[in-house]
Amino acid sequence: MIDGRKRKFIKELLQKAKLRRESGLYVVDGARMCAEIPPDEAEEIFVTREFLSSANAEICGPLLRRCGFTEVTEQEMKQVSDTVTPQGILALVRQKRVRGLSELLNMSERMPLLVLLETIQDPGNLGTIIRAAEAAGATGILMNRECVDIYSPKVVRSTMGSLFRVPFLVVEDLSEACVRLKQEKPEGGYPGLKLYAAHLKGAREYTLADYRIPCALMIGNEGRGLTDALTEHADAAVKIPMCGSVESLNAAMAAAIILFEASRQRRN
Amino acid sequence: MIDGRKRKFIKELLQKAKLRRESGLYVVDGARMCAEIPPDEAEEIFVTREFLSSANAEICGPLLRRCGFTEVTEQEMKQVSDTVTPQGILALVRQKRVRGLSELLNMSERMPLLVLLETIQDPGNLGTIIRAAEAAGATGILMNRECVDIYSPKVVRSTMGSLFRVPFLVVEDLSEACVRLKQEKPEGGYPGLKLYAAHLKGAREYTLADYRIPCALMIGNEGRGLTDALTEHADAAVKIPMCGSVESLNAAMAAAIILFEASRQRRN
Repeated sequence: MIDGRKRKFIKELLQKAKLRRESGLYVVDGARMCAEIPPDEAEEIFVTREFLSSANAEICGPLLRRCGFTEVTEQEMKQVSDTVTPQGILALVRQKRVRGLSELLNMSERMPLLVLLETIQDPGNLGTIIRAAEAAGATGILMNRECVDIYSPKVVRSTMGSLFRVPFLVVEDLSEACVRLKQEKPEGGYPGLKLYAAHLKGAREYTLADYRIPCALMIGNEGRGLTDALTEHADAAVKIPMCGSVESLNAAMAAAIILFEASRQRRN
Repeated sequence: MIDGRKRKFIKELLQKAKLRRESGLYVVDGARMCAEIPPDEAEEIFVTREFLSSANAEICGPLLRRCGFTEVTEQEMKQVSDTVTPQGILALVRQKRVRGLSELLNMSERMPLLVLLETIQDPGNLGTIIRAAEAAGATGILMNRECVDIYSPKVVRSTMGSLFRVPFLVVEDLSEACVRLKQEKPEGGYPGLKLYAAHLKGAREYTLADYRIPCALMIGNEGRGLTDALTEHADAAVKIPMCGSVESLNAAMAAAIILFEASRQRRN
């Protein structure tokens, strides 16, 4: 069972970015997402008896056996879950911290391919970008504080598990981070990082930029795009050539299209 | 003003695909979308006095001058609009019909690049695919009846105007359409159409397929992908190679990534 204080804590954790930041915890809901939680990041797992005998239980078996769980009633689960029909499993998970730019740059043995996000506000977009980034082989994500909280329930859900696997770092000042990224030399004998800004007024078609070097793709806010201040740090501004009367693509779509071009070039 | 009968008609038109099909009309709401309505497709336009003196009125000026409008009160507008805070302009628009496969194939002078959609159910996905298709230079869209109605308000909104510009055709039987598409020779001296199926088990990486020929990209349902019956008609099944633990991408994302690869090849 869950006592009243914990119930209140979980509900607030779902709603308040500040509490998530302070506690270093966040909530993961549902069988498919919970099944992907790295066991050493699970703080506490709540399941209903009904869940344990459901078809969904199996995929969470390894996690539950390894981490243990607290059994709760369906009534209690409804009180803490933010979904209309909870599946019967909910976990408190510890946030994983990347300690700084150097660590982010060298998390993977692969050649760095970072994604820099400036003030992405829509949870669905952020989640989709993280997912597409994992799929395209990005090695890390760098965000400013003005991005929607990556641990908010909607972002967590829409990453469909990529959140657990793609390293990311939130910084106060993206401009400063850009300067430092360009000074920093990635390990593994790679050359320094190039920064590409996705920009509607980009001078170069995105397919003509070279992604077979350590590089970062900068993506701006959904409505306003990248600020001029940040774009200034880019080695090149790249645009997606568009037919018809389409002026711009959704930020997540644009990110995915460019990241998969990078992936294509790196395969060839 | 709008009389009670018309009010009821508009509200039903927003809700019922059947009425939209029978009447050949659909509803477009909001200034930015209405500004893109081709004037010869506008049936009737309703605006509030407040809209006419708002900043939004300007972009709709050409349409309103050309087609005229019916002035309604804000109260009446609220009664017919399905948005919480209507912008003050709403139009009944005539559906544009492509008469058949030959016409769809030859709507554009460019080399055919069709998108075949099987049972796409999410309105946001369908809208996004149509928009990405226009941006990537697709020349037409072919759908089965099991796709969500393209004239439903959510699809209309999420196309952001591409609906007015990308030719499309809904058919009973996509398999039969595939057979006919492959027999049909596009005008303009082009060779016959190749069909590419986007498939998780595709044998070929999507970037290794040739899109510099008349071709169609087949995209399946969000959950189940393309049916085997339809996949059989494909000349090749193509897959998007994915890193990490990502099993599949959202249908709209996958469509956009492949369509922009086609666009890249056609530019080079």
